[in-house]
Amino acid sequence: MDIHQAIKERKSVRRYRPDPVPAEKLATVLDAMRLAPSGRNAQPWKFIVVRDAGLKEKLVEACNGQRFVGEAPVVVVGCGWEQRAYSKMGGYWNSLSVDVAIALDHLTLTAVAEGLGTCWIGSFKEDTVKEILGIPQEVKVIALMALGYPAVEPEAKPRKSLEEVVVFDSWD
Amino acid sequence: MDIHQAIKERKSVRRYRPDPVPAEKLATVLDAMRLAPSGRNAQPWKFIVVRDAGLKEKLVEACNGQRFVGEAPVVVVGCGWEQRAYSKMGGYWNSLSVDVAIALDHLTLTAVAEGLGTCWIGSFKEDTVKEILGIPQEVKVIALMALGYPAVEPEAKPRKSLEEVVVFDSWD
Repeated sequence: MDIHQAIKERKSVRRYRPDPVPAEKLATVLDAMRLAPSGRNAQPWKFIVVRDAGLKEKLVEACNGQRFVGEAPVVVVGCGWEQRAYSKMGGYWNSLSVDVAIALDHLTLTAVAEGLGTCWIGSFKEDTVKEILGIPQEVKVIALMALGYPAVEPEAKPRKSLEEVVVFDSWD
Repeated sequence: MDIHQAIKERKSVRRYRPDPVPAEKLATVLDAMRLAPSGRNAQPWKFIVVRDAGLKEKLVEACNGQRFVGEAPVVVVGCGWEQRAYSKMGGYWNSLSVDVAIALDHLTLTAVAEGLGTCWIGSFKEDTVKEILGIPQEVKVIALMALGYPAVEPEAKPRKSLEEVVVFDSWD
């Protein structure tokens, strides 16, 4: 699928069919994630692919009751080490968050081409997620991602116009 | 261009031809950026497209002497408001960094399809960038992105194997 079409068609899917994600499709979207760039090519990440029903049920609670986390056949948990990332350069730059977000974005767009849906999950209790999956103390959880076949056509959300979000050469 | 091909072909470009980015191609990559998802669809971002040679020269210094920042015909500065983002949910989640990273990733992949190169810039002095471009106090600079025609074929960086970065159902 054309890249621009994938970007246009990607929507947040919060209703999933129970069908599992075929192994070949899962391998394709995980490979797209793996190929992502990261600051100084540090690849300071690790991704937990959760398919176990009991674990997903526990993650529903950790994600503040979001039911689709339990319905999605796959939940990818994006983790990483701040110590292994490019480093904070001062200011607002946060290498680890940016790195893991890029990798998960690659997954979302490739999923569209594979006929799969995804949803970014930012509402979660990090400590609880870590406890459920046995994630070590020094590892951060950056974001979770639901993955599976959409059960319904998701709603398209409106976006601001280019004029609202882009300026040229200076802020004003 | 196919999404998976774009992901495979994207490389960090640090040598640029002086040719300007054609208006139509610039509009295409900016549109891909604009269409990105963000927490609660807040779109808490603003992007400054810098093409002025004098400003880019100043940005070289702000980016700790990285010469290609001045050579690239376009530098996109990814900014945002933490107050307008989905919010920190506690833990490590940082909505604004993730949102802006997704948008800039859309730009990088679409650029490949347009025959353009990009490079993520994480090494910059935020306060200096803000001063150069007149960015308000309350706005954060998340990352900068160089954009233009590659002058040379960039080096492909090796990536870890899937086995190294993905685990199933639990950390261990």
